[in-house]
Amino acid sequence: MKALKIDHLGIAVPSLAEAVKAYEALGFTVESREDVPTEKVRVAFLPVGESRLELLEPTDAGSTIAKFLQKRSGIHHVCVLVEDIETVLAELRARGVSLIDTEPRPGAGGSRVAFVHPRSAGGVLLELKEKG
Amino acid sequence: MKALKIDHLGIAVPSLAEAVKAYEALGFTVESREDVPTEKVRVAFLPVGESRLELLEPTDAGSTIAKFLQKRSGIHHVCVLVEDIETVLAELRARGVSLIDTEPRPGAGGSRVAFVHPRSAGGVLLELKEKG
Repeated sequence: MKALKIDHLGIAVPSLAEAVKAYEALGFTVESREDVPTEKVRVAFLPVGESRLELLEPTDAGSTIAKFLQKRSGIHHVCVLVEDIETVLAELRARGVSLIDTEPRPGAGGSRVAFVHPRSAGGVLLELKEKG
Repeated sequence: MKALKIDHLGIAVPSLAEAVKAYEALGFTVESREDVPTEKVRVAFLPVGESRLELLEPTDAGSTIAKFLQKRSGIHHVCVLVEDIETVLAELRARGVSLIDTEPRPGAGGSRVAFVHPRSAGGVLLELKEKG
């Protein structure tokens, strides 16, 4: 697998309004906002270089992000961009990497994504996103 | 403050050897290694696009990273590159941002860095690093 770049950092926050205010004070700017009903989150994207910060607020107490926030706020996942996600997943499976998704699934903005288990990435929840 | 790019993601791991093996299985390559005695860590840098992953292993049980690892492994901090760190710190102070370092201090590789408190960055420990 060739990770082309850090696509985004997913940051779980209890309040998007408060977090956006904090990041604006730090000099970041919101580029776009999106509701992702499948993940039960509302997000704001803030560009930094070739990457983006993705502030994630849960819209439902049963969502993954709401459960994460019961423990802490902050970085939830790191997403890297890859070329051909099927090839990457086959290659990682062959190397014994623990995958949460063995097949790509729909991500934000019509993308195709898959998650690697933190046990195979030094404790980091790693998202793979297919380019284009 | 204008964050030019994500410089690196600091990832705390109990064993650098194990983590490097895991990241190599994921397709990443170690670019350089460094001992940072002032921080009591041993690090490996793995490039991804314009950024790097910084795997951090503590060399002393009393280090910040060792204490962090008592809670969990994974992302410890996010570092963004800025132009003039003194100007940035003055600007952030004026906006009421909580700073861990009100003055720049020496970072890895002879850089000048300062940390923003997670309470002012949606739960993220944010490192600012001066360019050049």
